[in-house]
Amino acid sequence: MKTISNRTSIRKYSNREVSNTLLKDLLSKAERTPTMGNLQLYSVVATRSNEMKQKLAPAHFYQPMVENAAVVLTFCADFRRTTLWAENRKGTPGYDNFLSFLNAATDALLYCQTFTNLAEAEGLGTCFLGTTIYNPKPIIELLKLPKLVMPVATLTIGWPDEAPTPTDRLPLESILHEETYTDYTAESIDQYYKVKESLEENKHFVEINKTETLAQIFTDIRYKKSDNEAMSVGLLETLKQQGFL
Amino acid sequence: MKTISNRTSIRKYSNREVSNTLLKDLLSKAERTPTMGNLQLYSVVATRSNEMKQKLAPAHFYQPMVENAAVVLTFCADFRRTTLWAENRKGTPGYDNFLSFLNAATDALLYCQTFTNLAEAEGLGTCFLGTTIYNPKPIIELLKLPKLVMPVATLTIGWPDEAPTPTDRLPLESILHEETYTDYTAESIDQYYKVKESLEENKHFVEINKTETLAQIFTDIRYKKSDNEAMSVGLLETLKQQGFL
Repeated sequence: MKTISNRTSIRKYSNREVSNTLLKDLLSKAERTPTMGNLQLYSVVATRSNEMKQKLAPAHFYQPMVENAAVVLTFCADFRRTTLWAENRKGTPGYDNFLSFLNAATDALLYCQTFTNLAEAEGLGTCFLGTTIYNPKPIIELLKLPKLVMPVATLTIGWPDEAPTPTDRLPLESILHEETYTDYTAESIDQYYKVKESLEENKHFVEINKTETLAQIFTDIRYKKSDNEAMSVGLLETLKQQGFL
Repeated sequence: MKTISNRTSIRKYSNREVSNTLLKDLLSKAERTPTMGNLQLYSVVATRSNEMKQKLAPAHFYQPMVENAAVVLTFCADFRRTTLWAENRKGTPGYDNFLSFLNAATDALLYCQTFTNLAEAEGLGTCFLGTTIYNPKPIIELLKLPKLVMPVATLTIGWPDEAPTPTDRLPLESILHEETYTDYTAESIDQYYKVKESLEENKHFVEINKTETLAQIFTDIRYKKSDNEAMSVGLLETLKQQGFL
């Protein structure tokens, strides 16, 4: 894990192939990730065909990584396999509920992140697409996900064709609480966000977005209340459709 | 990440101290994990005091790791810090909704898993406690988590005092789907679960649980429909209480 300190998301990939042997080796190794009751409540759909990448692109708001990556992996919370196993073994599965969704989503996300760490240690570049849960319905249709299967994360993968400077992170003391949660004050917020707000690239970001503050880029442009509320409705509807609510 | 192939959850810890320096170093390094818009939508509460561990224990159904581990880390989906930052910077935050919960939970879980990978590469033993979301209310009260903060994962950490044999995993072909989801059949289920069901330790597990099949241990004893449904109600209530629904 020596690679971790310099890691960045990689959005531009070379034409070099990502072999199925390597991909499967990394996905196999990642199976050692902890999982609820050793049930492995996840599935992964690998997209390699250009046709399927093109069809996935709109669900990810046409972020270019989807079409340019060698492989796109969609990580799904999956209680279907376990449910079928149980039904075929005289069990009485009861996983069509919200707790079970969150159990399976947890398994899928932990698995996804171990895979990411392994892939990056191998020199591969990855980009995590949070858009998966913004607009899951077309992904479900395209990948033919049955009930009790819900996409929760997408990773684009390829050999890097860029070497971006790592972006900033908050100081650890802003994230770590000792024994109980120490609530933030106007002063501690100022202190913790000072470096982030003073960076040239973030000042430039404010300039080109024509906002007054850096925070406004997130609240007023990128992750707006009205969008979040509309997408929450869609997300809950999709959980119902997939049998988890 | 050479450690990954032999990793197991560690539930027994030696008395050797886990220094704050090491803990903070690993938590800092893990901050390179991808995060939505570089907002780092997570917080971690570290429990070291015996009094607090004892108080946390019932929320985790008295699993002995909680009281025996050097450190217990509770990873939280956290939109409070970002919301306060935005409010103090003339932004209009809109993160009191379900999408935002899942965004922050994703950030927290990915961060937790990179931390786990780093800690294990350092020789530390960890155990992931899924019980965090079974019974989140007492954890929230004890750790004083405000609105827009929700515990999603707990990790117990210490130097290993056991070396268990790695548990089995399903064959990769049962998890990986090419281009679209290939639904399971009775035959493919038989094939994929054959090795798991034939292992001596799993046969023994069936024997001591007095069930007919391995699957029944999960559906009829460990993760029962009635429990899942009751806990789903509590989980959704808690998301409302924390302002995410």
